[in-house]
Amino acid sequence: MTPPRPCIGLFDSGLGGLTVLKALASVVPDADYIYFGDTARLPYGSKSAETVTHYALDAARHLEQLGAEMLVVACNTATALSLEAITNGLRIPVVGVIEPGAQAAAQASRNKKVVVIGTEATVASHAYQRALKKLGVDSHEKACPLFVPLVEEGWSEHSVTDQVARIYLDEAFAGDFRDADVLVLGCTHYPLIKSVLQRWEPRVTIVDSAESTARAVAAKLGTRVTKDGPSGMRFMATDSVEKFRRLGEKFLGRQISAVQHVDLKE
Amino acid sequence: MTPPRPCIGLFDSGLGGLTVLKALASVVPDADYIYFGDTARLPYGSKSAETVTHYALDAARHLEQLGAEMLVVACNTATALSLEAITNGLRIPVVGVIEPGAQAAAQASRNKKVVVIGTEATVASHAYQRALKKLGVDSHEKACPLFVPLVEEGWSEHSVTDQVARIYLDEAFAGDFRDADVLVLGCTHYPLIKSVLQRWEPRVTIVDSAESTARAVAAKLGTRVTKDGPSGMRFMATDSVEKFRRLGEKFLGRQISAVQHVDLKE
Repeated sequence: MTPPRPCIGLFDSGLGGLTVLKALASVVPDADYIYFGDTARLPYGSKSAETVTHYALDAARHLEQLGAEMLVVACNTATALSLEAITNGLRIPVVGVIEPGAQAAAQASRNKKVVVIGTEATVASHAYQRALKKLGVDSHEKACPLFVPLVEEGWSEHSVTDQVARIYLDEAFAGDFRDADVLVLGCTHYPLIKSVLQRWEPRVTIVDSAESTARAVAAKLGTRVTKDGPSGMRFMATDSVEKFRRLGEKFLGRQISAVQHVDLKE
Repeated sequence: MTPPRPCIGLFDSGLGGLTVLKALASVVPDADYIYFGDTARLPYGSKSAETVTHYALDAARHLEQLGAEMLVVACNTATALSLEAITNGLRIPVVGVIEPGAQAAAQASRNKKVVVIGTEATVASHAYQRALKKLGVDSHEKACPLFVPLVEEGWSEHSVTDQVARIYLDEAFAGDFRDADVLVLGCTHYPLIKSVLQRWEPRVTIVDSAESTARAVAAKLGTRVTKDGPSGMRFMATDSVEKFRRLGEKFLGRQISAVQHVDLKE
């Protein structure tokens, strides 16, 4: 008899975490997933640690109550500011996106110089810098607050995004980090502009923390992984379910049939 | 004996409404103001009517409880989606930014063709279109979701903002509205890029709803206005008070000495 499929909960402030779900469903296809987008309170990336931790704990507990056996914090900001609080506040195992991203970056870098781009809050927390330092890697972090709105405007391939990327990357790959050989996408929206970034910095290896996190989850699940058919996916949002469904497909790369509205009793 | 100074409450999702406070303090200097920025839940402009109304009512009731005798909804999105719910939910008089903006636009337009730019939610509500229609004016509304993040990045005068403005304005002044002679700034962030917009459309009259609203409030106050010294201002925010203070000065055009943190018990 095969064991039951694991149920994995993921949350993000909005749709970006769907890039983590996409990577996860490809590495661990035989699991059930519940994705929670806190769209009524997004973005997290420009807000304070107290506010983000409060929101993140709400979302995490909701997923635990729904029966998730493992929680993936599919958001760099929530991982950076609140991973410890979430881990302490839940009984199930919790995986963040930063540790796996840092490990992949450390492996990929030859000269041990890495550039990390992310939201204001992620960069201000220096969570990537600390994680990379432990692995013997120096890093330069750069906040890129316009990338999320540009992706959400549907301008992933647009001359304006190109220009903004050039400005941000010039500031990121500067001084001692001019020759950094790895660029970490420290925000789950950024995989959608990966080709723009790679075009401007063709010699660097781009590390997508969504992919690294998916591999970390697979390793943690180990023998729990069964082979009884494709994964089931449920979607929840705290704001408009219609908007989530419509825009979410761009991030997930597949159709989203139904989204359930959740009111966190604010 | 002079009557006591009126106490006016204003709220917005964030800092944009400070442009309304700035205009108001100049037209009605002898009042006390309480400004409430719902920064933990910003932005409102990309969210659903249900969510925005829920948030807006929280903010409005908080100001009423603090003793405001009049409430200014210093946010186009909250006015567009929730003015009726706020007016019904409060005992004090409520003034929104859309009606005054529409009236100023109708007065300024010779050919009765007006372009309105605003957030996604404001435009989707067609609140400006309805208000202008009643005044015999045709309008074309265009959502400009990148303007707020560009202003918040500090790029009000920047080649990227210039390029984005050109793209949005080309789409706004199109078809039958190619010869529209008034542009309404239907978002409280936009006064900070007024000069960029005017440069691209030198022949149009730009209507800033902050200024029109200030005049509407003054008219409503009438004889209540006294002359016993400069206005007092209190500031409140639901997220980081430090960030509010630091960035708010750009919108208000004067120093902000203290900001109080408010937890709306979410």
